[in-house]
Amino acid sequence: MAMFLKVKTADDVRSMIGKISPLPPERVLLSAACGRRLYSDVSASEPVPHFARASMDGFAVRARDTFGASENLPALLEIAGEVAMGEEPTVVAGPGKAVAVPTGGMLPEGADSVVMVEYTLAVDETTIEVTRPVAPGENVLQAGDDIAPGAWLLKKSSVLRPQDIGVLAALGIAELEVFSAPRAALISTGDEIVPIETHPLPPGKVRDINLFSLAAQIESAGAVIGLRTTIRDRLEDLVPACLDALRTHDVIVLSGGSSVGARDYTTQILKSLPESELLVHGVAIRPGKPVIFGRSGRVLFWGLPGQPVSALITCQEFVLPSLRRLQGMTESEQAPTIRAILNRQLPSVHGRTDYVPVSLSSRNGIEKGATPIFGKSGAISILARADGYVVIPEHVEGLDAGAEVSVFPFR
Amino acid sequence: MAMFLKVKTADDVRSMIGKISPLPPERVLLSAACGRRLYSDVSASEPVPHFARASMDGFAVRARDTFGASENLPALLEIAGEVAMGEEPTVVAGPGKAVAVPTGGMLPEGADSVVMVEYTLAVDETTIEVTRPVAPGENVLQAGDDIAPGAWLLKKSSVLRPQDIGVLAALGIAELEVFSAPRAALISTGDEIVPIETHPLPPGKVRDINLFSLAAQIESAGAVIGLRTTIRDRLEDLVPACLDALRTHDVIVLSGGSSVGARDYTTQILKSLPESELLVHGVAIRPGKPVIFGRSGRVLFWGLPGQPVSALITCQEFVLPSLRRLQGMTESEQAPTIRAILNRQLPSVHGRTDYVPVSLSSRNGIEKGATPIFGKSGAISILARADGYVVIPEHVEGLDAGAEVSVFPFR
Repeated sequence: MAMFLKVKTADDVRSMIGKISPLPPERVLLSAACGRRLYSDVSASEPVPHFARASMDGFAVRARDTFGASENLPALLEIAGEVAMGEEPTVVAGPGKAVAVPTGGMLPEGADSVVMVEYTLAVDETTIEVTRPVAPGENVLQAGDDIAPGAWLLKKSSVLRPQDIGVLAALGIAELEVFSAPRAALISTGDEIVPIETHPLPPGKVRDINLFSLAAQIESAGAVIGLRTTIRDRLEDLVPACLDALRTHDVIVLSGGSSVGARDYTTQILKSLPESELLVHGVAIRPGKPVIFGRSGRVLFWGLPGQPVSALITCQEFVLPSLRRLQGMTESEQAPTIRAILNRQLPSVHGRTDYVPVSLSSRNGIEKGATPIFGKSGAISILARADGYVVIPEHVEGLDAGAEVSVFPFR
Repeated sequence: MAMFLKVKTADDVRSMIGKISPLPPERVLLSAACGRRLYSDVSASEPVPHFARASMDGFAVRARDTFGASENLPALLEIAGEVAMGEEPTVVAGPGKAVAVPTGGMLPEGADSVVMVEYTLAVDETTIEVTRPVAPGENVLQAGDDIAPGAWLLKKSSVLRPQDIGVLAALGIAELEVFSAPRAALISTGDEIVPIETHPLPPGKVRDINLFSLAAQIESAGAVIGLRTTIRDRLEDLVPACLDALRTHDVIVLSGGSSVGARDYTTQILKSLPESELLVHGVAIRPGKPVIFGRSGRVLFWGLPGQPVSALITCQEFVLPSLRRLQGMTESEQAPTIRAILNRQLPSVHGRTDYVPVSLSSRNGIEKGATPIFGKSGAISILARADGYVVIPEHVEGLDAGAEVSVFPFR
């Protein structure tokens, strides 16, 4: 049986992923930009708001006309008119005058502040009493108070959230450049796999789990699946399928066929592709050792184990970060983890990174407890019961019960 | 000016949302089910795997033939043949025999265990030495070891993750029932708003932020936006638009027009709709007081403030949970929060729930610090700088610096 040629540590592979160059940008409408990563910094080209606005319902006044006003000694002001929402005021707030203005309405000339309606009393149709003084600028959003022209706003490669979309809308940015969504080809192979619709299963056969679980993972990372297919585990079928996928995809993910056995086709497939380079042939991890990573020109090539649990863990740990990197994820970004206390001892082997599924529970109302889920190697039901996993790094020989751990949540 | 008729606390509104009935189920393909909520419990209808499989590359043997084996005194076994991946074995592992088997291959008759290839040595083409004993069942996944028939697997209303999709694929469930995605109609109104493409802005006008930020929020909660439009702030335009939206949507979200002013159209619109009921007219929160919630028959009706920050916060706090409830979110589910230490004092008013945007930072490498972001009321740039928000409940009069708080992350 062939030996692993380029066995790497998990850290080695992560470091290679960090060197992947992002894809060129694509232009999207603002309505399709949420969740995407900005391709360039955005700074403000104009002030927001671009005019002084009332931030409360009330009356626009000259602040000095209200100085000293109280409930016992209110200031009497004449209503000069009102500002219509969205309209330029047609009246002026001269000395001793008040102009009714709604929240968001434009401040009329002469006014420097807004008295909240709660602190006014209508005397008659043309006169109000003001029972509290306002300071100049009070209840007014001045031009540029929200966003000043030239102010730095959103950083390149940040993931756009609804409020960021709101800021871009405020600036009138109807289209923008984001990092392209990678196009992924997912190919599942293996002499043992049959379509999931197969009932009953023939002896020796299993359903094609990876075609569904890996597709769900890949899509969750923002990639678009262009091809998703099962191919017979023969070089003469797999090589043409990969050659074809190369033309219109940024990443090929092939699951199955990569164990060190008589049928170790995956490296042969990679070698058959143009400008190919084998970067990783095996990773010192459990589960998931037989991972293959390489390139064919600018297209990334991942060979994942066919075993569904190994495929899922290695896709989560390596393939998804590579997809995020293509979308401009910066190296300093890290997956959010959950702090928890390990409920029991976890043995491990020095020199190998272990991924251990855990369930989370509340320990004392504040802390979370992480309970390792053990079971037979390769049982996918273990992952369905898990909330996430704990990573035991290669230079650590197990973790003690009571140790604080970081749990990488499954989502 | 009209008074708020049915001012509620934030808790009142949450409790009303908890009573919303989920939508009926829809049937989706397994490939489209990730991220959706299961409509029924799933238990296993068959064992996984349905045959005994090798969980390591090696040789299928009778364990007793290896008892006592060591490097110095290896057990000699005759190679009876090999198991092809995905095929029913054609050979039997009789006494003194070994059958080569790949990981995942079917265990041949007679064998009860698998010796890992690492603990064997080929003597010649027909004989191997076994240098370590195996126990019966070792390196074998028995039928039902992963999933036993009848075992409870996935719970109603759980959100399907990639590994859950994998379990469903393993069981051959190619289609399933999930809670329907609500169809939402988003209508933005206001005399001050103009299309975001407007350059330059006329005096008094602002761009239609909510049409973009609220749409992004609504889609992030799994709803489908069927209608997304800006309508003139006139009853004669808004009522027909809402009547039309009622026919094909589960939720109407109307932003703008709901402040307590001369143009308080939103309640009038709701009253004009068939079988309408006004449930909430104002919430004791800041920002976002003028929220309206009601129903027209089975369709939920939300009136949000036009002011973009208030609209965003109230959408996050009330509209999104109502959309998740329509999709089967259970009452016990809570948004995940981040524990942090408040970096400075936060004043508040008794009787009102305050939502305060904060940025998060590392305090000492372990704890996170939450710094309130202050600024003029209504500035959307504050939300773009925030990582989340802190809620000061109605019965609390502010929080001290150093207090531990739960931060609701923006995503």
